[in-house]
Amino acid sequence: MREAYHEELAAISDGLVEMANLVGSAIGLATTALLDADLKLAESVISADEKVDDLQRDLEDRAIAVLARQQPVATDLRVVVTSLRMSADLERCGALAQHVAKLARMRYPRRAVPRDLRRTILEMGQLAQRLMAQAAEVIITQDVDAALQLEKDDDRMDELHRMVFQHLLDDRWQHGVETAVDVTLVGRYYERFADHAVSVAQRLVYLVTGEHAGDLPKDGLA
Amino acid sequence: MREAYHEELAAISDGLVEMANLVGSAIGLATTALLDADLKLAESVISADEKVDDLQRDLEDRAIAVLARQQPVATDLRVVVTSLRMSADLERCGALAQHVAKLARMRYPRRAVPRDLRRTILEMGQLAQRLMAQAAEVIITQDVDAALQLEKDDDRMDELHRMVFQHLLDDRWQHGVETAVDVTLVGRYYERFADHAVSVAQRLVYLVTGEHAGDLPKDGLA
Repeated sequence: MREAYHEELAAISDGLVEMANLVGSAIGLATTALLDADLKLAESVISADEKVDDLQRDLEDRAIAVLARQQPVATDLRVVVTSLRMSADLERCGALAQHVAKLARMRYPRRAVPRDLRRTILEMGQLAQRLMAQAAEVIITQDVDAALQLEKDDDRMDELHRMVFQHLLDDRWQHGVETAVDVTLVGRYYERFADHAVSVAQRLVYLVTGEHAGDLPKDGLA
Repeated sequence: MREAYHEELAAISDGLVEMANLVGSAIGLATTALLDADLKLAESVISADEKVDDLQRDLEDRAIAVLARQQPVATDLRVVVTSLRMSADLERCGALAQHVAKLARMRYPRRAVPRDLRRTILEMGQLAQRLMAQAAEVIITQDVDAALQLEKDDDRMDELHRMVFQHLLDDRWQHGVETAVDVTLVGRYYERFADHAVSVAQRLVYLVTGEHAGDLPKDGLA
């Protein structure tokens, strides 16, 4: 019984890692599709998100099955409940990567991001992908220090997000309102993606230490 | 034992309804603060969100306690797990209402929303509040038809959201980029708020019928 139980927990954890890997790749590919106006790549990111949703449903079913069959208590119970929360974060990241890809598709054959913001958006996309890779690692290693590091690394995302706004609000902005709207939304998608990656790490910290890792992810306007 | 159990489930349900009521009021007040550039009201919405976060933490603790002590199976287990998911939706709605209020505060003493978008934004705010009131009712009554109605009512939010974009992208837009950025974000906040209200109702449908209520809430770009 115990062995089956730990196998089931391991399967849940594997599912989370797989989800994290998929959405990490998705945000990377979506960023490329966005910056290069690559319609085919955008389409592939959009359709691949179904797999993330399937994984989440599967994971949710598994978690509920474990609760019903094994009736875990104490830490084991928290593992299962935390997994449910993490899978919701990861599912959301998949949707956000899909949004980035949809914007690329909507503006095709034009590029949604003007040239002078290309480097900043690229860095946001790469950082988002890196934060998600760290989150996946943290799920595997349960390393609290590494988990706490994510929040610090996310500061750079906030900085990049501020840079995007500064650029938008600069008097020299010459790309018109449509591009301003696109860039505003894209900036928000990356920021939220990173928040969810940090959230996964914070839930891990809570799981291991029983302490909340600071407050909820920053999710301000700027 | 059974009685205590049903009392605990009732307490969880009460907590969800209280959260829904609070965030419904919050989005209404935040909309007023935004449209009237009412700093005091904005501040009160921002600080009131702590209560929502407290309720969510409380609800999560209760749910985990029920799982540990009562070890529910089948439908009862789904009730508890679904409650956890609903509380996450509602917590997010609180954060979104807070974002609207923060935008009001950031632009004070100016108004973030130009006069010609005032009516549309007012309707979005009122609709968001109404959808949340319906969601609260659905939690109480477990009325599947009423729950399914929310998704239809949300179509109007999508329509309003499209109207905001049309307005932004109209050649006659004369409010500059900063206001375009503000309006883009505000539109997104209302749309997401409504999505979460629909999501609460969909989870209820699933709980009662075992069937998923269509796909996940629409959360497109437009």
